[in-house]
Amino acid sequence: MTGLWDGTFARGGAAAAVSDVAWLRAMLDAEAALARAAARCGLVSDTAAAEVTRVAAQPEALDVAAVVARAADAGNPVPPLVRVLTEAVGPHAAAAVHVGATSQDVVDTALVLVARRAVAAIDADLATAADAAARLAADHRDDVAMGRTLLQQALPTTVGFRAAAWLSGLDGARARLAAVDASLPVQYGGAVGTLAASSGSGVDLRAAFADELGLTTTAVPWFTVRLPVADLAGALGAAAGVVATVALDVVLLAQTEVAEAAESGEGRGGSSAMPHKRNPVAAISARACARRAPGLVGTLFAAMEQEHERSAGAWHAEWPTLSALLATVGSAAAWLADCLGGLQFDIVRAAAVVEAAGGAQLAGALADALTGSLGRGPAHDAAADAVRQAAREGRALADVVAERTDVDAGRLVAASTPDVGEAGAQVDAALAEHTVAEQSRRPRDPS
Amino acid sequence: MTGLWDGTFARGGAAAAVSDVAWLRAMLDAEAALARAAARCGLVSDTAAAEVTRVAAQPEALDVAAVVARAADAGNPVPPLVRVLTEAVGPHAAAAVHVGATSQDVVDTALVLVARRAVAAIDADLATAADAAARLAADHRDDVAMGRTLLQQALPTTVGFRAAAWLSGLDGARARLAAVDASLPVQYGGAVGTLAASSGSGVDLRAAFADELGLTTTAVPWFTVRLPVADLAGALGAAAGVVATVALDVVLLAQTEVAEAAESGEGRGGSSAMPHKRNPVAAISARACARRAPGLVGTLFAAMEQEHERSAGAWHAEWPTLSALLATVGSAAAWLADCLGGLQFDIVRAAAVVEAAGGAQLAGALADALTGSLGRGPAHDAAADAVRQAAREGRALADVVAERTDVDAGRLVAASTPDVGEAGAQVDAALAEHTVAEQSRRPRDPS
Amino acid sequence: MTGLWDGTFARGGAAAAVSDVAWLRAMLDAEAALARAAARCGLVSDTAAAEVTRVAAQPEALDVAAVVARAADAGNPVPPLVRVLTEAVGPHAAAAVHVGATSQDVVDTALVLVARRAVAAIDADLATAADAAARLAADHRDDVAMGRTLLQQALPTTVGFRAAAWLSGLDGARARLAAVDASLPVQYGGAVGTLAASSGSGVDLRAAFADELGLTTTAVPWFTVRLPVADLAGALGAAAGVVATVALDVVLLAQTEVAEAAESGEGRGGSSAMPHKRNPVAAISARACARRAPGLVGTLFAAMEQEHERSAGAWHAEWPTLSALLATVGSAAAWLADCLGGLQFDIVRAAAVVEAAGGAQLAGALADALTGSLGRGPAHDAAADAVRQAAREGRALADVVAERTDVDAGRLVAASTPDVGEAGAQVDAALAEHTVAEQSRRPRDPS
Amino acid sequence: MTGLWDGTFARGGAAAAVSDVAWLRAMLDAEAALARAAARCGLVSDTAAAEVTRVAAQPEALDVAAVVARAADAGNPVPPLVRVLTEAVGPHAAAAVHVGATSQDVVDTALVLVARRAVAAIDADLATAADAAARLAADHRDDVAMGRTLLQQALPTTVGFRAAAWLSGLDGARARLAAVDASLPVQYGGAVGTLAASSGSGVDLRAAFADELGLTTTAVPWFTVRLPVADLAGALGAAAGVVATVALDVVLLAQTEVAEAAESGEGRGGSSAMPHKRNPVAAISARACARRAPGLVGTLFAAMEQEHERSAGAWHAEWPTLSALLATVGSAAAWLADCLGGLQFDIVRAAAVVEAAGGAQLAGALADALTGSLGRGPAHDAAADAVRQAAREGRALADVVAERTDVDAGRLVAASTPDVGEAGAQVDAALAEHTVAEQSRRPRDPS
Repeated sequence: MTGLWDGTFARGGAAAAVSDVAWLRAMLDAEAALARAAARCGLVSDTAAAEVTRVAAQPEALDVAAVVARAADAGNPVPPLVRVLTEAVGPHAAAAVHVGATSQDVVDTALVLVARRAVAAIDADLATAADAAARLAADHRDDVAMGRTLLQQALPTTVGFRAAAWLSGLDGARARLAAVDASLPVQYGGAVGTLAASSGSGVDLRAAFADELGLTTTAVPWFTVRLPVADLAGALGAAAGVVATVALDVVLLAQTEVAEAAESGEGRGGSSAMPHKRNPVAAISARACARRAPGLVGTLFAAMEQEHERSAGAWHAEWPTLSALLATVGSAAAWLADCLGGLQFDIVRAAAVVEAAGGAQLAGALADALTGSLGRGPAHDAAADAVRQAAREGRALADVVAERTDVDAGRLVAASTPDVGEAGAQVDAALAEHTVAEQSRRPRDPS
Repeated sequence: MTGLWDGTFARGGAAAAVSDVAWLRAMLDAEAALARAAARCGLVSDTAAAEVTRVAAQPEALDVAAVVARAADAGNPVPPLVRVLTEAVGPHAAAAVHVGATSQDVVDTALVLVARRAVAAIDADLATAADAAARLAADHRDDVAMGRTLLQQALPTTVGFRAAAWLSGLDGARARLAAVDASLPVQYGGAVGTLAASSGSGVDLRAAFADELGLTTTAVPWFTVRLPVADLAGALGAAAGVVATVALDVVLLAQTEVAEAAESGEGRGGSSAMPHKRNPVAAISARACARRAPGLVGTLFAAMEQEHERSAGAWHAEWPTLSALLATVGSAAAWLADCLGGLQFDIVRAAAVVEAAGGAQLAGALADALTGSLGRGPAHDAAADAVRQAAREGRALADVVAERTDVDAGRLVAASTPDVGEAGAQVDAALAEHTVAEQSRRPRDPS
Repeated sequence: MTGLWDGTFARGGAAAAVSDVAWLRAMLDAEAALARAAARCGLVSDTAAAEVTRVAAQPEALDVAAVVARAADAGNPVPPLVRVLTEAVGPHAAAAVHVGATSQDVVDTALVLVARRAVAAIDADLATAADAAARLAADHRDDVAMGRTLLQQALPTTVGFRAAAWLSGLDGARARLAAVDASLPVQYGGAVGTLAASSGSGVDLRAAFADELGLTTTAVPWFTVRLPVADLAGALGAAAGVVATVALDVVLLAQTEVAEAAESGEGRGGSSAMPHKRNPVAAISARACARRAPGLVGTLFAAMEQEHERSAGAWHAEWPTLSALLATVGSAAAWLADCLGGLQFDIVRAAAVVEAAGGAQLAGALADALTGSLGRGPAHDAAADAVRQAAREGRALADVVAERTDVDAGRLVAASTPDVGEAGAQVDAALAEHTVAEQSRRPRDPS
Repeated sequence: MTGLWDGTFARGGAAAAVSDVAWLRAMLDAEAALARAAARCGLVSDTAAAEVTRVAAQPEALDVAAVVARAADAGNPVPPLVRVLTEAVGPHAAAAVHVGATSQDVVDTALVLVARRAVAAIDADLATAADAAARLAADHRDDVAMGRTLLQQALPTTVGFRAAAWLSGLDGARARLAAVDASLPVQYGGAVGTLAASSGSGVDLRAAFADELGLTTTAVPWFTVRLPVADLAGALGAAAGVVATVALDVVLLAQTEVAEAAESGEGRGGSSAMPHKRNPVAAISARACARRAPGLVGTLFAAMEQEHERSAGAWHAEWPTLSALLATVGSAAAWLADCLGGLQFDIVRAAAVVEAAGGAQLAGALADALTGSLGRGPAHDAAADAVRQAAREGRALADVVAERTDVDAGRLVAASTPDVGEAGAQVDAALAEHTVAEQSRRPRDPS
């Protein structure tokens, strides 16, 4: 039996992209690219590099059990993997395996490949969520709703403006992930980083290695200068934070007492004790997944402190931590895509909240305006009469007040009319930025 | 292919204790215990409770696939599990399933059971490590070694005293885990905690439920007051911290330049680029595992902030986080047990470092003492002569100095002789505490 | 100008207890206690120890500027403090200063003293908050309110039951702090822990030192085995978590749409843009302070990994981190004491929510019950008629339904009547535990 | 008395840049810029804006005590500050104060200004450290030293290559801070973000406001979408990680047993118990400061989850947390600048370690080569003879071996000769990147 929690915590494509199989594939991809790079630098034959590439593309034909069995004792999976790969390619191509490299070259490059592939999956779900937010922003551009600060009703805004804020966050998170993705480097330095085993072609080989994988190269290895990992941690933490704040808004708007938004999930959200309840399961799960991120991010930043030319523990701690971070941010993004994709706003109810607040404000203003002529008590009675009349006749209080000639009714009504300022223009601006961001995004090739 | 990282990060018994299978078993154990408790309170028949217990003990006969398929949509696995379990026990025993309970009652109680079982596994490895530390402390009680502060050689201590400090930490970590373990409560409250579905016997039923599982009961449910989770987080974080500091000592003592300790691991610690190296893989891996803990601990403390009668996300975030914490602390403990079990101190080398430092100190003291009678230059020459003589004759400098009559040789030698103060007495005290702790430890039955 | 943020983040007594002045006083208290302990062990004269005690009690007479000026270069404040103190006591008592000690002995013991004093302040505010919660629980023992799970209305509970859950958390947090407080040890080991400079009386001196300060002693020093710091971190993190969850409940109950609770703060909670708003400032600020805790807790657990006999950085990182943690948890507790002390529940509104939910449930049940005899459409019309009649006559729907003879009215009404189960009994149990906890608490002398 | 810890934890310019005075100044700067922006948009007169600017530039003339006294009750300092400022500018300019703004507009913009100023201070110290690293890399480009992986001696590298790795990290950290600095936005939205109180000119006013402060503008406010804070957290965490790893290298190289590097700090690093010690205080303190960062970073990422249009607690938690993060990263950078500025490498000792390792390797290779002709025992004897001969004659073993004709001496010697591969070329590349980075850096005006 597997997967009891996977539907919740291993959702979307990121979890598969950080699996053991994916890591193994990434290590083999790194070894194959390294062989081709060595051939491009003239260190090994093209034939041998091609053979390494061919064999590395078929992990299922390798003695993976031997790799697994020896990985822990070796300190990482690369030493046994190199042995198994070398045997598999045979004596003619053996020289093209792991040219001039140390284990960390392969593990770090694989880490980058794993991260890129998982980030691509995360980005796809964030894109779906952003598109949904854009649609909500456009559809509800002018639907008024109550804005809330410190969880208190404050002043009117629009449903679309709220969605535009979500959109700006999701687009911002995607932009950060894309920037990091485009900057990720290969790792290549040999035993202590000097490229001493690269036959004098190490710097060139590193560039070719990077080129083979679509990664960047570096002036020196980053064995213990872990900025690429920090970059990933920061961008993933930011994405989790954006997902969390959007999901929190949905949870709050879905409260029974607010009920301005609801998830459309079919058959979801039942309760074993309370069958009549309907819970916003996608938003709740998105929050749960996103909440796991900050601690993992903190661990990766703490692990930046690494010894000499290779760290004795902090480096190793990155592997499961980054994997978990990618998986949980991916799950959060997948849940949010699901949540926003089916989110339904109750714009009638949202407008009624605004109107009720405006009515209370108008009644108060009317009483104030009448106090001068009538005195305090009668003025309040008159205002209360107007409220009752509006309720009895099923009309808006503003209509009733507008008929009065004893006050500047126009001014009173105007002051209590929902004013959403430049909400619409800002929605348009956020949508325009979204369109630009979409257009500038080249089709991605995450390999 | 599975398990690429498991040898490193899923070591010891804790990883299995937090697996999906283990969680499912714990939920079924909770349901069975609840049925028996309900029977004890007269709410259901003994026969029905026995049937629930019988069926719950055979998860492999249940439709687990249906549980997995529905868990995410339901928000947690309990709603589908209750359905599957109810069907499996048949109409006669159905009333004995999930009596008066809500999902959180079962998930939280299962969380406690999972934690207890994983803690038992962690404790077993910590006990092995502590016993090894005790052995090292006793064996090397009086073997001098250099103490180091701020990574600088400072003053002499003993190998045994260092091991006694480790021992005190490991015993302390175990004591904290044991205290938490003994305090863990069942969860039982029904939908919103009032026990409204427990036919007026809810408080009694909670006590009986606790008794069935060897857990404690509570005055009110702890649905959103997460002190038991915080207790686990704190004790596990403390255990990780102790393991990390011991492992760090081993890594530092195993440095090529220090070489006062070495792991005995057979066939371990190879390097793909540097076959002549021998790395302290167990200590390194223990550090790697332990370093994952603080971030996970922080996440659990942050998740204590939960809403109303059941949290919309923070509660859910506990499940994978606590599981990961238990697994990584367990792995760290297993690696440390391995490390200390085979640790070999080079007491000759350790003593030589102390002697060299003492010699330098003695030579300086001799020069100072002779300066009054000989003048500064000749005094230094005389001291240098003595050092050369000792080297040439293969004797300790102290012996050579002791033969001089022109200085208070006895005082000089005494001042430069390694003085380890009350190291031995303190080793004995730590060993005595260890013995008492072992004796007071009842055989554990983590159910 | 100072203190811009202090009203929010340095509230209660804990902030003062971790100030620079408080740290200095604690170091001097440690030195004085050490001198007296040395006198008890016969290592120095009682006169000298008394002189050290006298001088140490008057920090304002010492050359503190010299201590401050040299602290950073020395790595910690103790080396210059010892110099200043030695000069101040004069040659006759100089031998009684810092007997056999190293800087860490004094810094760590001072850290423990600082922590104890801050914990006493935190505990006082938690006690105030707990008493307020107890009062609320007792006053509202039987006032019904809607329970909410996943932020959805679920089933009825009571206001008092909610407060009892808060009470159980606050009492639990206090119990954890008290347990840690009672376990805190002195630090005493000399340069590398062997007590080599303690004239053979080190173990006895450590015990006397502990006795002077009301602390515990240890078998070996805890220079790099930081369990006491971990214990503080865990208990403080737990306290923060409890405060946060109570404050979150208040914020949620104070929402405009829920409005079941309000802070009574006079003149608080204004908004520069929205003067009509009233914000639950104390609860909001309590959350803000509590949220700072988990990261600081994580830092302390991460800092447990320390090198050899004295750590080169991790040890030092504890000082500002623990100070910040104590101050922020203290501020959170002070805000919560303030919040709960004036919290007002709107029990009429709370009851109305329950009744409305019950009415909806009863109307549905009536329609279902009538469907057999009348058919689906007419049954719903009849139920709607009953609802309208109740509204028109100002009666409860249950009264109207109870008059019907065509259904089992008693059963229908009973099923829709708020049932708070054993809420009252559980409130009583929590209050009883609170009383026992109060009585068992000896008057505290945090030295 | 103040400042007991400041020499260690409030070093460099960042601590002053986050002080209460600095925050107040930043809030006033924001208010002044807002007034000027409003004038540019025609909402207020230039005269009034000038008056606000004039008054805001003289905080010492304002009733700051009133601000401090009311800040906590108001939830933040802006409401009382606006009142005090409005009074100070008088009725003619009052309309130019806080135009269309809410408290969060000012607090968030001030937060950005505080951060920029602190980042400028941090960057200055990082630049000093980077220049020192560049100098060390250039000076020691070809000085061989032993590379160490997993804290074991591995293969030769150069001192300069090690410094080049530090340089690449420091330059990378600076680049990340600069990118974030250039992206920081103003905050401006009014009560709920709609710009409803900005007379229809809100979007323009926001752009002018940004222009006044040299910040960027945004499509919508970022009230609860906290990407700018996340960006700062990520870049500061990365800087801390780089500082920590460099400082750790220094601490490890300064170990008594390694002694390849030493800080030049005069009068630093004394020990109260061990006067003969000399500790690398700057590196130790840099580690201590840097270690505080990951937890604070985690807190900021966790605080991204914020409610509706303004958060009830998470927002507030950012203020002290970001301040502490800026101060501690700044202190770490200042310590590292100090450390690297005076760092001295012992290149003779470093070379000797390499030579000794090479000798051991050569002796082993000689024995292996002779085994075929002489047999195992005699071959080892012959190798041992050669080692003794070299020692006796004070020659390198390689010279002795080179005289032998019974083995391929040239090959053996070559294989054991330190080969630092492309270390030099990589040093040159890192230095070239450093030069480019320096040149492209415009003089900064952090306002």
